[in-house]
Amino acid sequence: MSPYLSLIFSVFLYLRVYGAAVNKPNIIILFADDLGYGDLQIYGHPTSSTPNLNSMASEGLVLTQFYSANPVCSPSRAALMTGRYPPRTGIWPGVLNPNSIGGLPHNETTIAEALKTAGYKTGMVGKWHLGVGENGTYLPTNHGFDYYLGIPYSNDECPCTICYYPNAPCNSPLKIPCNPSFVSCPVFENTDIIEQPAHLPTLSTKYSNAALGFIRANAGKNPFFLYMAFTHVHQPQFSDEDYTNTTLRGPFGDALAELDNEVGLIMSTLKDTQVDDNTFVFFASDNGPSLRVQQQGGNAGLLRCGKGSTWDGGMREPAIAWWPGKIRQGKTAELAATVDLFPTIMSITGAKPGSAFIDGIDMSPILFDSKPSNRESYVYFPAIYDPNIGYHAIRWKQYKAHYYTSGGIGLCPDTYPDIVCRGNYSRRSHDPPLLYDLHQDPSEIYNLDTTRYADVMANIDAARKNFESTFEYSESQVQRGTNEKFMPCASPGCSPFPSCCKTSSQESTLWTSYSSSRV
Amino acid sequence: MSPYLSLIFSVFLYLRVYGAAVNKPNIIILFADDLGYGDLQIYGHPTSSTPNLNSMASEGLVLTQFYSANPVCSPSRAALMTGRYPPRTGIWPGVLNPNSIGGLPHNETTIAEALKTAGYKTGMVGKWHLGVGENGTYLPTNHGFDYYLGIPYSNDECPCTICYYPNAPCNSPLKIPCNPSFVSCPVFENTDIIEQPAHLPTLSTKYSNAALGFIRANAGKNPFFLYMAFTHVHQPQFSDEDYTNTTLRGPFGDALAELDNEVGLIMSTLKDTQVDDNTFVFFASDNGPSLRVQQQGGNAGLLRCGKGSTWDGGMREPAIAWWPGKIRQGKTAELAATVDLFPTIMSITGAKPGSAFIDGIDMSPILFDSKPSNRESYVYFPAIYDPNIGYHAIRWKQYKAHYYTSGGIGLCPDTYPDIVCRGNYSRRSHDPPLLYDLHQDPSEIYNLDTTRYADVMANIDAARKNFESTFEYSESQVQRGTNEKFMPCASPGCSPFPSCCKTSSQESTLWTSYSSSRV
Repeated sequence: MSPYLSLIFSVFLYLRVYGAAVNKPNIIILFADDLGYGDLQIYGHPTSSTPNLNSMASEGLVLTQFYSANPVCSPSRAALMTGRYPPRTGIWPGVLNPNSIGGLPHNETTIAEALKTAGYKTGMVGKWHLGVGENGTYLPTNHGFDYYLGIPYSNDECPCTICYYPNAPCNSPLKIPCNPSFVSCPVFENTDIIEQPAHLPTLSTKYSNAALGFIRANAGKNPFFLYMAFTHVHQPQFSDEDYTNTTLRGPFGDALAELDNEVGLIMSTLKDTQVDDNTFVFFASDNGPSLRVQQQGGNAGLLRCGKGSTWDGGMREPAIAWWPGKIRQGKTAELAATVDLFPTIMSITGAKPGSAFIDGIDMSPILFDSKPSNRESYVYFPAIYDPNIGYHAIRWKQYKAHYYTSGGIGLCPDTYPDIVCRGNYSRRSHDPPLLYDLHQDPSEIYNLDTTRYADVMANIDAARKNFESTFEYSESQVQRGTNEKFMPCASPGCSPFPSCCKTSSQESTLWTSYSSSRV
Repeated sequence: MSPYLSLIFSVFLYLRVYGAAVNKPNIIILFADDLGYGDLQIYGHPTSSTPNLNSMASEGLVLTQFYSANPVCSPSRAALMTGRYPPRTGIWPGVLNPNSIGGLPHNETTIAEALKTAGYKTGMVGKWHLGVGENGTYLPTNHGFDYYLGIPYSNDECPCTICYYPNAPCNSPLKIPCNPSFVSCPVFENTDIIEQPAHLPTLSTKYSNAALGFIRANAGKNPFFLYMAFTHVHQPQFSDEDYTNTTLRGPFGDALAELDNEVGLIMSTLKDTQVDDNTFVFFASDNGPSLRVQQQGGNAGLLRCGKGSTWDGGMREPAIAWWPGKIRQGKTAELAATVDLFPTIMSITGAKPGSAFIDGIDMSPILFDSKPSNRESYVYFPAIYDPNIGYHAIRWKQYKAHYYTSGGIGLCPDTYPDIVCRGNYSRRSHDPPLLYDLHQDPSEIYNLDTTRYADVMANIDAARKNFESTFEYSESQVQRGTNEKFMPCASPGCSPFPSCCKTSSQESTLWTSYSSSRV
């Protein structure tokens, strides 16, 4: 670099950092649950109704090669919060339950902790799924969030109650039950249970009120970070009066339309409070569509398989970056991932990331400068991580090599047309690996001959070695086991446990049988 | 209806018809070849580059439930031109070849004929595929078009030559040959061969020049009808200097980008000639993606199977309706089909349709009034129509019943993941029919229990009876056989036939072997 260019570059860097220091932008992460690559109108779904996400997309940048860090919830969210591949954080194998002893270790630095240290007000609304633990030790307010409201795990990790307005019970075509052995889903505010069982039809309103209240309380006064982790569109799907039976797409479409409304309320509140030009908003989802609930689940579009699988349908996600005047409008096929949000947000805000190894790579070149991604490769960890097996696949540029494949680990029916996606399709190894060109063959159908792609394989091998030289996993938090007493209960010590866990003046309306009133 | 409303309605109708009579709108049909539902950016493809179709879509109405009339070329195009299901026109089974004796019968009324009678100048550019016949009797200029330029059938119905700039031979990953037993592809102007063999890299420029010349010659002087039937993106894919090796998506992406450029040139010429506010433009494709050529073929997105199959991937198509100030911007999930263009164009222009039975239904309510479609049902005819079997499936509202299914009749490899799509998956019958809800399950995965949908099945049965009461097929034109002498030859009587058929000063550059230079 010439001295002149170097000087210009230094001034540019100074201005960017200085600008961040004097007028710190607000940060909002909108994170959907089990939303597939093909579920939004802007990704080609023919009957979804998502006008607010359409608007956000038309004003922002749509990413077509954006990955979550895992094909199931808890590990995916651990990576989002820390910028680290899930096994590093201990959130493996699979997901945490209401009675899990473990949770996201306190020595992990979350985005919230880093931003709080940098002077941000931090709020979270929705699904946490990184542990509750003894006395709520793993709840969001013990991980850097000043405020929290939400069901802290999946809405099927409890007995299901009413899902649709006015009182339609939760259902699914496969009669997949929610879990009656756990306590009813609690709605927490900070570390207090304010509603148990959660009333799903009105949950989105509670979420929106909390999110909008948090924005209004801070807009223009403090820089803020809002992590809005929708319970939508995980099963059991649900919706309230304004959305029940309103969409062409049925129960899933109703739930998605309600999510879209939550997005719209947040976006309009940013404009109302005049912070829209100083707020970075990023929308994505935790993993691919749940194929288990059949037509009531999501759709991966042209990608192969869904939730639970390391085929792209399990981990490639819809993603929209939005910041008017800062982030360009359009689409990009540059490679990026949820782990990249941590360093990107550090870069935007000037916050400090802590000392842990970060797998994420700053997305600023893609977002602000229309430049190529600094990410050349990406590692696909399976839902059921096994340290003796390791990751299942790696992507280098547009090529993806599968060393292991497996189906949707019980999350995809055994009648699904593509057998490799089925829940009963157990793990198998591939030597040489299965190799695909995801730019020409996003559906991962046409396996390339690795001997004809020796140069590609050499680059993939180099990327593997580079990754493995830095990788170490942490002790499993999931395998620490369970303790029934840790399940969150609004009436501690009540009997018979857990069905007695209710907030006052509520009747238990447990899900008892499949209703044929909706299909 | 009250007398007042009736009066207002009559005045409205009068104005609409009168308006059409005094200032007849121009009509343009843009028809792609083998373009799948998932191939465009606006339908979710992650690496396609289609800026001009994006613009057209953002200015117009995108249809998400729009069907071609057949999963292969010739019958689909016969229906587009006549508004009639393919077997009525005699264009069955399968497609016409360069040596076919038959073609679209002269007693069929094409859109061009109807519009010519109504005072329109009519031009066609591109792939006709409704016959050549003895002395070119079935060519477009003998079916109502004042002008024609193009290869009159598929660009693999001839020996393949150079496909990519500067001189890369045609290829495909499967080494699928073009057909060396036919004459080299001819480029016709009206009934004269102006180039043989067709030079594919420069073909799009020829097409564009012809289309733009036709528009400029007529814009503001005569109402005109242009039928632009791209040779893109049929295999062998091809492109010229400005597009070869320019897209992330490889050879298919390059061909698609060149098609998109042709669209852009037409749209900008409408604006340059100031007829954009008086021109109805409709973009669609003839059938689903060819899966035979693997990653060099198209993609049906979230729809099942592709070209050759009556699963929706074979027949549901990208579609955009455009007419600034007349057709609203947005998306619609209303049901429509290529056969509907004939009566819609008659309605818009005031032209007379002739006396034949028309299967199409006027789309005006969807296009101009944001009203529900008048089409309640749609009939899926297979690629290989058999009068003893009849149609394969019927759609009523969002439900589709398959009475027969088959794979892609040689157009889908036997390694394709979903076995029902494979070329070797022969026809089988279903009693009760396979039943799907395409609004909730566009991928046709979750077969519904017909006994639980008795009311739906009753409506489907009524739609079947209603259709069958009007249906009759015409004698097969395809089964009239072949005559080698009818193959179009620029040097009639030359020897050795057919390789001698060349225009002057051209060297034959036949496709001889698969090149590994492109993948």
